[in-house]
Amino acid sequence: MRAWILSIGNELLIGKTINTNAAWLARKLTVLGYEVRREISIPDEDAEEIEVFRDALSRGIELIVSTGGLGPTFDDKTSESLAKALNREYVVNDEALNLVKAKFLEKGLELTPPRLKQAMMPRGAEAIPNPVGTAPGIWVREGQSIIVALPGVPAEMQGMFEEHVEPRLMSIGPRPRFVEASFTVKGVPEAEAAPIIEKAMRMGNRVYIKSHPKGHEIGSPFLEIHVYASSSNEEEARMEVERTVNYLREELRRRGGDVE
Amino acid sequence: MRAWILSIGNELLIGKTINTNAAWLARKLTVLGYEVRREISIPDEDAEEIEVFRDALSRGIELIVSTGGLGPTFDDKTSESLAKALNREYVVNDEALNLVKAKFLEKGLELTPPRLKQAMMPRGAEAIPNPVGTAPGIWVREGQSIIVALPGVPAEMQGMFEEHVEPRLMSIGPRPRFVEASFTVKGVPEAEAAPIIEKAMRMGNRVYIKSHPKGHEIGSPFLEIHVYASSSNEEEARMEVERTVNYLREELRRRGGDVE
Repeated sequence: MRAWILSIGNELLIGKTINTNAAWLARKLTVLGYEVRREISIPDEDAEEIEVFRDALSRGIELIVSTGGLGPTFDDKTSESLAKALNREYVVNDEALNLVKAKFLEKGLELTPPRLKQAMMPRGAEAIPNPVGTAPGIWVREGQSIIVALPGVPAEMQGMFEEHVEPRLMSIGPRPRFVEASFTVKGVPEAEAAPIIEKAMRMGNRVYIKSHPKGHEIGSPFLEIHVYASSSNEEEARMEVERTVNYLREELRRRGGDVE
Repeated sequence: MRAWILSIGNELLIGKTINTNAAWLARKLTVLGYEVRREISIPDEDAEEIEVFRDALSRGIELIVSTGGLGPTFDDKTSESLAKALNREYVVNDEALNLVKAKFLEKGLELTPPRLKQAMMPRGAEAIPNPVGTAPGIWVREGQSIIVALPGVPAEMQGMFEEHVEPRLMSIGPRPRFVEASFTVKGVPEAEAAPIIEKAMRMGNRVYIKSHPKGHEIGSPFLEIHVYASSSNEEEARMEVERTVNYLREELRRRGGDVE
């Protein structure tokens, strides 16, 4: 199953922002079993957005994930452009409206037209809750393609992907074999573990690593490290997880970590 | 004048590498006065490469810069793909052959077929010397388009761009108004100045900053900071340079720098 990653935002095209979203999503989609065929960055312009969405749809790309252009301002056009690319009406989505209303009520803010705009989606789309910001994401199917539109702010994008998009793709996507493993380490702060984890991810192709801080024990930081890998071949995934876990354990021990 | 940036390499599409090349080039091209319209990452596959080069050429994009796929291995296909996209023969380029020969002779290495491959280019192309690695870059014109193909290794790509591509584009490109300014600072190591410089670049849109270490004076690091900006409006460029220089001077002073 093929995937395209579409990054929308002028800041990318003037080199103001390094596109970490595309790399993060590419790793996630690869581990989910997708073959990422193309990553495209375009400015915040409806004609560009419509063209690229249509290009991917006309090729029957199975998964199209976009980031950016979902905010309240006039130059956030992704949702409307997607409706046009799909030849669908651009309408208030009830789910999205409830999510947006709840967000603004919670903050005691009025539902102004720019804010209401964040509840508008192509007809037939589903809203993806945003745990961090206000703009819901979009999940919509067209023929054999699934299109997922997420905000460009990395924390929002990642939270929404991990909470809502990833579990769904795991159940309906390419279904590779997943192998996972966890272990805990005491005495290494998360900030010190981060570059080791990044290096371990770069060493493998289909492995993903996440660290969860589990608090402090007698003043010593306590991390849970979760490693997972996917492959069409289960043995391969198992070996990748094993190799990665061994590397991490050794490196964390060298930093004085008490590894279990 | 429009520009496209094409990044070639499987490592980008599995999220193993963050595409810093595209951001670096986007900033450089923006400051040179180009409007970067699209950044595309594709795998090391000739069909993909040919398609994207042809797409850009058929739109008459004035500048197409690619990175990656110029090495000696079987999966480095950029040069041959570019020849196909241009409907030109793929031939040994004399300039490139001299550059490649000199590189390998210097290292006392034989000119094997994979190494010779790095001297093959579309007919009519010019070779761009590579100060760091062995693969020359490619400069070729087709109609109103200039195509520049550079290696994917950031140090090689940047060196070749700054030494050979940038000066040439400055003389034949969009010719915006350039404004520049320099100052020196003593007592702040380059590694400490780097994040301040990065922040200052992110604050401006058409400004570029470079630091040159000028050695140590009585054990104290000595840096020359060079700031330049471009705009169709000279006053705008001047203001951007001034704002950036003021910000840098203040931040460097706060780090204990002796700013002149």
